[in-house]
Amino acid sequence: MNWREEIEAAAIRITPYVRRTPVMRASTLGHDDPTQFKFEQMQHTGSFKARGAFSTLTSVDVPESGVVAASGGNHGAAVGFAAHRLGYPARIFVPEMAGPSKIALIKSTGADLTVVAGEYANALEAARKYEKDTGAMQVHAYDAELTVAGQGTLMREWEEQGLDADTVLIAVGGGGLIAGALAWLGQRRKVVAVEPELAPSLNRALAASRPVDVEVSGVAANALGAKRIGQICFDLATECKVQSITVSEDEITRAQRTLWQEFRQLVEPGGATALAGLLSGTYRPEPGEKVAVLVCGANLSPDPFAS
Amino acid sequence: MNWREEIEAAAIRITPYVRRTPVMRASTLGHDDPTQFKFEQMQHTGSFKARGAFSTLTSVDVPESGVVAASGGNHGAAVGFAAHRLGYPARIFVPEMAGPSKIALIKSTGADLTVVAGEYANALEAARKYEKDTGAMQVHAYDAELTVAGQGTLMREWEEQGLDADTVLIAVGGGGLIAGALAWLGQRRKVVAVEPELAPSLNRALAASRPVDVEVSGVAANALGAKRIGQICFDLATECKVQSITVSEDEITRAQRTLWQEFRQLVEPGGATALAGLLSGTYRPEPGEKVAVLVCGANLSPDPFAS
Repeated sequence: MNWREEIEAAAIRITPYVRRTPVMRASTLGHDDPTQFKFEQMQHTGSFKARGAFSTLTSVDVPESGVVAASGGNHGAAVGFAAHRLGYPARIFVPEMAGPSKIALIKSTGADLTVVAGEYANALEAARKYEKDTGAMQVHAYDAELTVAGQGTLMREWEEQGLDADTVLIAVGGGGLIAGALAWLGQRRKVVAVEPELAPSLNRALAASRPVDVEVSGVAANALGAKRIGQICFDLATECKVQSITVSEDEITRAQRTLWQEFRQLVEPGGATALAGLLSGTYRPEPGEKVAVLVCGANLSPDPFAS
Repeated sequence: MNWREEIEAAAIRITPYVRRTPVMRASTLGHDDPTQFKFEQMQHTGSFKARGAFSTLTSVDVPESGVVAASGGNHGAAVGFAAHRLGYPARIFVPEMAGPSKIALIKSTGADLTVVAGEYANALEAARKYEKDTGAMQVHAYDAELTVAGQGTLMREWEEQGLDADTVLIAVGGGGLIAGALAWLGQRRKVVAVEPELAPSLNRALAASRPVDVEVSGVAANALGAKRIGQICFDLATECKVQSITVSEDEITRAQRTLWQEFRQLVEPGGATALAGLLSGTYRPEPGEKVAVLVCGANLSPDPFAS
């Protein structure tokens, strides 16, 4: 698999449909060198997931029964949005823990929605049954090549925008976003995988040398709460020697607060998790090391404009 | 007065202290052509005001008694921040209507704070008395050349970032921001001044052919509620043939909601007022006209992280 080619091709397919999200340098946060940020929460539907959804739906023949996805919320909103934009029916299965904001967001895309009791794995099971029963096409949230290639367009775009970093911190749930980054970068830059202590699917997999099931909970669970890291991510993380770190609930909440107080960016816990890796001191850059932080989602609960 | 030179000089002085805020294009909002945005609310202290504050404090000899400013909130926070960064004492006078978020923000900069009953004009009077009594240096919120030159660095920066617009919509309170933009642009681009119906200081001045006192109220009053447009702004607006429009309270609130729903940008009413000019249809671009919207402040109340 030639990932660079796949990502280039995905970028060409999705450019008409996704936003080139802004970047900024800021000398703050107690570090001497400016940190580089990309604010991907400004993407359509409030997270990076639109990239993977459009990557998939622009490269396959979608059956008449449309598309189906299981999602903690952000992926479902992105698939619903992309399907509506491209004129396909969509059915999204979400676990209850997605919460009212994300459920309302998915509905607003025009997708049909089924809320499933329990966690993400239960929604995935229901989506698989629906796929089998109806012939609808499944769009996997992270462990599929087209999804990963779509997410990889983000790092390609950031480099085009002048990313000048030795090290990039990225939050990890199922691993689609970081897999895309690694697929694009290889080992050209150091990538640090940041996970909540309460949802450490990649961290545990690296320790066990294979994907293993983990318990997931905590403030970022509806975004980063995959029970098991995707195989594509695991393979790329191993090959590219990713550094894996975990952060506490408090550290995530503090990073969320800092993003508001410093930059007036109101993001969800999962969107602040990469920054928590830096602010908490869990990842300590060397003197002169140039660091970048990806802010990746802002579908928080309660939605500030919920009526 | 050679404004371009003044703004170039201000840019050199303030670059070490202010952020280069991000820009984005987005094809949304029912317009065919992408709208260009600059998100200046990501500036230090959450509004463009830091530019004018640093422009002033880096070009004068500050007396031992420090600096004093009157402010609806944003200017005070910026002066407090700039003074602290440069090592000067600061005293800020705010009217009660600044609200608890902005008052807390000013306090957080380390400035001494006096809350004055009534509106902005009362705070300005108290600040003038303090200036006279103590010898402290007054930093005017909008009607001073160094302030306007500082705000002008924003449009200079936007052009450096590739602004490609026939028309730029800018919110107006006392007129410092739009004066800076006009001082930089002259008549090279069309500038549309957007004011709340309930705080129309420039609109009324243009109708009367001179600055006149207006009543101010409404959701954006603590940012855009200057009782009388600044003379510098009035002169530039007349010379550059600014188009002046006003928007209703509802239109401002809807633009605020749109900025969240489309871009996950949570801003204050004054920060959304320029966009309201476009979304409401009050300003209607010609077919093919390229439009830019400046988002300029996000110090809303209640602060989402107020404890």
